Amino acid sequence: MVTTVRLAVIPGDGIGPEVVGEALKALEAATAGADVVFEQTHFSLGAARYLATGDTLTDDDLEAVKGHDAILLGAVGGVPGDPRLAGANIERGLLLKLRFELDHYVNLRPSVLYPGVASPLADPGDVDFVVVREGTEGPYVGNGGAIRVGTPAEVANEVSVNTAYGVERVVSYAFAAASARPRKRLTLVHKTNVLVFAGSLWKRTVDAVATDYPEVAVDYLHVDAATIFLVTDPARFDVIVTDNLFGDILTDLAGAISGGIGLAASGNINPDGRFPSMFEPVHGSAPDIAGKGIADPTAAILSVALLLDHLGHPAAAARVREAVAADVAERGDAVRSTSEIGDAIAARIGAVVGAH
Amino acid sequence: MVTTVRLAVIPGDGIGPEVVGEALKALEAATAGADVVFEQTHFSLGAARYLATGDTLTDDDLEAVKGHDAILLGAVGGVPGDPRLAGANIERGLLLKLRFELDHYVNLRPSVLYPGVASPLADPGDVDFVVVREGTEGPYVGNGGAIRVGTPAEVANEVSVNTAYGVERVVSYAFAAASARPRKRLTLVHKTNVLVFAGSLWKRTVDAVATDYPEVAVDYLHVDAATIFLVTDPARFDVIVTDNLFGDILTDLAGAISGGIGLAASGNINPDGRFPSMFEPVHGSAPDIAGKGIADPTAAILSVALLLDHLGHPAAAARVREAVAADVAERGDAVRSTSEIGDAIAARIGAVVGAH
Ligand SMILES: CC(C)[C@H](C(=O)O)[C@@H](O)C(=O)O
Ligand SMILES: CC(C)[C@H](C(=O)O)[C@@H](O)C(=O)O
Repeated sequence: MVTTVRLAVIPGDGIGPEVVGEALKALEAATAGADVVFEQTHFSLGAARYLATGDTLTDDDLEAVKGHDAILLGAVGGVPGDPRLAGANIERGLLLKLRFELDHYVNLRPSVLYPGVASPLADPGDVDFVVVREGTEGPYVGNGGAIRVGTPAEVANEVSVNTAYGVERVVSYAFAAASARPRKRLTLVHKTNVLVFAGSLWKRTVDAVATDYPEVAVDYLHVDAATIFLVTDPARFDVIVTDNLFGDILTDLAGAISGGIGLAASGNINPDGRFPSMFEPVHGSAPDIAGKGIADPTAAILSVALLLDHLGHPAAAARVREAVAADVAERGDAVRSTSEIGDAIAARIGAVVGAH
Repeated sequence: MVTTVRLAVIPGDGIGPEVVGEALKALEAATAGADVVFEQTHFSLGAARYLATGDTLTDDDLEAVKGHDAILLGAVGGVPGDPRLAGANIERGLLLKLRFELDHYVNLRPSVLYPGVASPLADPGDVDFVVVREGTEGPYVGNGGAIRVGTPAEVANEVSVNTAYGVERVVSYAFAAASARPRKRLTLVHKTNVLVFAGSLWKRTVDAVATDYPEVAVDYLHVDAATIFLVTDPARFDVIVTDNLFGDILTDLAGAISGGIGLAASGNINPDGRFPSMFEPVHGSAPDIAGKGIADPTAAILSVALLLDHLGHPAAAARVREAVAADVAERGDAVRSTSEIGDAIAARIGAVVGAH
């Protein structure tokens, strides 16, 4: 029996469409001949759409996206400083709105330093960890405000909201993930000595959930100390669980030490399955290199691997990762175009599929 | 005419007293024969004091400290997990209380990679920048709270408070600092696309103050992107200005890439001069290595250089830095005790002073 997956594709702006094109090649190669077909709906959303229509994400858009089983997103955002976008906040109005409306409470960001890939670190060691970043709370909730704007008496507040409901579910997910990994280690990252209310909630929640996972070794790091270890001893990490903002910061740093943002994939996951999960490279729309065919599609392709894992196709996901690993191992200094990289990886996936 | 500086010395806990001892040797060597004498008052504050008396920082302590011209602090904080400290928050009750009560609105944290010092980065380039971290606002204000604590309906909030008053003064300080440096570059680090109210205030303030400093080149980075550049191209930074929490995170990372937290010095500065400024190594009390005489006192000694700069003795400050640079250049893998390092640096300072 063949399953049909309704896939919403949001290519977005800048290099988004270019890397999504290659990601779809990888998806096709990885599922060719398998008992799953992907029925794609392409959504034109992002800065270009906003400039054309004034809309960022309408209720109709949202309903239409919700009618799908999963989402593949390239990147959204216009040219920084474009005066026509001054009033828009594409990130908040589109990307964060999707994460919040679709209850993507797990933002999953693996960091693996593949053999042959250069790291800025002199001695990175074995980098293979995953950050489980909370996706629907913290300072991202948009509960800020300001008074007397533009006067010397202006006050601008930002509120970080953390709930037992929200923290418990992402911490439980992280423990399950740690338990399923060979090293079974979980590190909570927060700033409990300063953010005492939120920090206490996170700490107590980790302590409580830990009793269900006696096999998982737990430790805690302040966020400032965690950045030190990410550059001096990244091999110490296995699963990191942290809040929305700390997760944002740590995963860019994690991407940088494990081959750069051109390789960093992510999944915005609604583990309940009530809403479609969304897979996207961590990088942005990079308008400066858009249209030149030089963007690296690997992060988008690795996001397809996360999508396949999520949809219950671990073998297909593994083939994508193996093909990427083989490709990056041989990259050296060769300059290849976006589609050359995409074709090479798709061909490797195809060859592996053929051989199975 | 000889000036007398009333110096409050807070050795603190763990390795604090050990490194402060060496820092005072350097101070003495650097000012021997000069027209300034330091009259020291030692304050017993920290976890040890709390355990003995139950007090963290009393009103009397605070008044006594205020009666000084400057403060030298080692490190405060007990053994993590010590049950007797469960109810105490030495960091908030002592360190942050001093920063807030003494209006240390500039937290100055230079990062210099001295020749001969190893960095975890394969190719660090010329690392020589300073982070001007806001010290009295942001998520550090302690304006959080929680309801229904310990129940599944718990909500824990943290409020980041940012004022035009507070942002303008630290941004002005940062521009003046950038203008006085050869490269004259200033980078604002924030997260304007998510923390839109606070971010907008910071951005508008930088734009406004920039008009008074046409010679300073200004750019902006999101905090997540800033962590990437700190490991891929730290040489791009000259002066970074940022909020309290982002500054906390970035300066630990900055310390890690420029020789480690054993070399990272900081000044908590009240530029108005209404209150004494406080100089401290960025590292903590490291109870695990306390009492063994193996802590590296260099960060504390470099904090003395910042103190001398602040008090208007740039030549003495330069001698301290030159002695440190000469010492670290020859360190190699030699294992020396805390006092051996302190003596060696003090001797070098003395030799230079003698030669002048
Ligand atoms: C674009 C921005 C809103 C987003 C975030 O902060 O989450 C990005 O940095 C990311 O990490 O996906
Ligand atoms: C101890 C802690 C409260 C402090 C801070 O967060 O400011 C420390 O990390 C620092 O950077 O001086």
